[in-house]
Amino acid sequence: MINKNYLKLPGSYLFATIGRKVKEFSEANPDKTIVRLGIGDVSLPMAPAVVAAMHEASDEIGKAIKGYPDYEGYEFLRTAIREHDFAARGIDIGIDEIFVNDGAKCDSADLGDIFSLDCKVAVCDPVYPVYVDSNALVGRAGDYVEEKQRWSNLIYMPCTASNGFAPEFPEETPDLIYLCFPNNPTGATITKSQLQEWVDYANKTGAVIIFDAAYEAYITETDVPHSIYECEGAKTCAIEMRSFSKNAGFTGTRLGYTVVPKELVRDDVSLNTLWLKHQEIKFNGVSYMVQKAGAAVYTPEGMAQTKEQVAYYMKNARTIRDGLADMGYTVSGGVNSPYVWLKTPGTMTSWEFFDYLLEKANVVGTPGSGFGPCGEGYFRLTGFGKYEDTLEALARIKRI
Amino acid sequence: MINKNYLKLPGSYLFATIGRKVKEFSEANPDKTIVRLGIGDVSLPMAPAVVAAMHEASDEIGKAIKGYPDYEGYEFLRTAIREHDFAARGIDIGIDEIFVNDGAKCDSADLGDIFSLDCKVAVCDPVYPVYVDSNALVGRAGDYVEEKQRWSNLIYMPCTASNGFAPEFPEETPDLIYLCFPNNPTGATITKSQLQEWVDYANKTGAVIIFDAAYEAYITETDVPHSIYECEGAKTCAIEMRSFSKNAGFTGTRLGYTVVPKELVRDDVSLNTLWLKHQEIKFNGVSYMVQKAGAAVYTPEGMAQTKEQVAYYMKNARTIRDGLADMGYTVSGGVNSPYVWLKTPGTMTSWEFFDYLLEKANVVGTPGSGFGPCGEGYFRLTGFGKYEDTLEALARIKRI
Repeated sequence: MINKNYLKLPGSYLFATIGRKVKEFSEANPDKTIVRLGIGDVSLPMAPAVVAAMHEASDEIGKAIKGYPDYEGYEFLRTAIREHDFAARGIDIGIDEIFVNDGAKCDSADLGDIFSLDCKVAVCDPVYPVYVDSNALVGRAGDYVEEKQRWSNLIYMPCTASNGFAPEFPEETPDLIYLCFPNNPTGATITKSQLQEWVDYANKTGAVIIFDAAYEAYITETDVPHSIYECEGAKTCAIEMRSFSKNAGFTGTRLGYTVVPKELVRDDVSLNTLWLKHQEIKFNGVSYMVQKAGAAVYTPEGMAQTKEQVAYYMKNARTIRDGLADMGYTVSGGVNSPYVWLKTPGTMTSWEFFDYLLEKANVVGTPGSGFGPCGEGYFRLTGFGKYEDTLEALARIKRI
Repeated sequence: MINKNYLKLPGSYLFATIGRKVKEFSEANPDKTIVRLGIGDVSLPMAPAVVAAMHEASDEIGKAIKGYPDYEGYEFLRTAIREHDFAARGIDIGIDEIFVNDGAKCDSADLGDIFSLDCKVAVCDPVYPVYVDSNALVGRAGDYVEEKQRWSNLIYMPCTASNGFAPEFPEETPDLIYLCFPNNPTGATITKSQLQEWVDYANKTGAVIIFDAAYEAYITETDVPHSIYECEGAKTCAIEMRSFSKNAGFTGTRLGYTVVPKELVRDDVSLNTLWLKHQEIKFNGVSYMVQKAGAAVYTPEGMAQTKEQVAYYMKNARTIRDGLADMGYTVSGGVNSPYVWLKTPGTMTSWEFFDYLLEKANVVGTPGSGFGPCGEGYFRLTGFGKYEDTLEALARIKRI
């Protein structure tokens, strides 16, 4: 009767566990103020241009209703995306290749739906948990093997200091490859030529790359690709996911989009057609107000204001990175990413360091092992906090 | 590589086909004004109380960000739902049994995820296409048999004039039963004692009822249940879906919720736990603004304003029903539902009547056969238009 795959999931969702631990600590220590640099949630208010757009949109629907939105998103938003995120970088993406969604997380969990259940899936280790869990729920991941902390049927690509946190081609050829750059959780990036190698590999083997570019706005170095479609041949092998959460503070407003190129054909069928069918049947579009808010991100004011927010978070990330390095921690990330990835001191496990930091410094971060066994011995801090809080967290860590 | 079930779907989504036909007609006849009484989309502007709430919410997030929403929805909204939709009717539903979503369509397509792929599914015929198509996409519906216009592995429960458009217990015992009352598309309802029989049946057989109460606000008669939980024992066999689309004009704003009672246990597991897991992994909550807008529906102003809107649409439905009856059409629905269900004249098929009405009266409705073979020879008109348009449509139909 029930889908038994649900019972195979080990423990609770990482961020739910962290939330519970922090809540318990707060309740036991009501006098302590906690600094949260754990979950990847933003802290600055929504940009004025975005708020103004929401106001306008609310007024509009108070005068004349906007009915069911298009399954793919309003043309005004898809046109802005096409122009600013792609055409401006010399990439030709049609608006009928862009699918607006209520946040990239949903699509990163749902994209698997259009593939066969016997597809072999490759993920990085450490990895954003949704890629793994969503495949586990439909049985594609096999069984969870407790002692290995891995699923029996997934292909894991270790990303550790020894390979510069960049995955290597797996021994077994996968059908689906999830890649996320700039990476969550490690904050690492790969260069355009490295990504080109993955595109060539996928085109040669017939694999499909699901490329998560949610952190694209944080790229500061020139040889780091903003879109996988900067690579030659990517349209015949890659789906790209984008988010408004991190570049424009939409974590609580929910907006993202997915690019499925028409040229991406498998088993003689364009995946664009399949995904449109998926959205028509399983989705009903995104709120008009939210899409109007999204379009405001691409106005001159919106671009200037959100760029400032990204710079603010990046200043935090640099502060964390440099501060921890000065204290003798081994750190990476924080250059093209709001995430700083640090080695836990001595022989501490990730969760030991989590508890240590929470108890001694009242600072919340994310244990690397929560993202996979290769994350063990690592810890993630984010630049998404307030600057004052970031300084305070560093001062406290210094004292312990 | 690809999910081959996608290739089994016959033709395009019903409302996409209608949209295309109307577009073609408009382009060929630019001088004709078309009256749309087809798709179940509302026509009145959003209620002032709802618009005001959106304004306030926009201002709030322009001052201090609201981060990731709870997976289950904000407590303020779930508390309002609990009080007004359930406690006020003497039904005890906990807020941890309420899951807020971005429109009931998504959950009506996704609820199948927590059940095994070999579950046997029963649907009414005619039926809201999403129940069928979402099961077809995961293979649960079997193969589409063109000559029968039915899927090989679904159990169909005919709802026609001969049984008062109320389904009868199927011969084969299903695991999952989709029921929608007041019904889309027929506009029919069943009484509380009839629904109690279904609850008893499910509790006896172990089946789970997925009860779609999206049109609950349109109930005018006293013996028609607003919630399946009015029936004794429903908490151990039923999931209920609700929508803000039809009662408060949220078709373009996207908000709904699903109730999964904790007492609903199958294979020794509470489905509430499974659905929470589903939402944690595959969903990231609904926009703060939209949830604030939803909560405004439950304020005294919001309730008064949306009640007026429902009354407006019901006046339309009555006008259509009575007007068509006067012209000699056989009609049903329109009493506890915004939908009027009419018999096509003579031997006309549903699509023939669609074309006839579009060409001769420039009125758009929905062919009954689009909802299943037992809908053949029927046609759906909705009360969701403007009153003037409704009168105009009737006048035109009278002339042809």
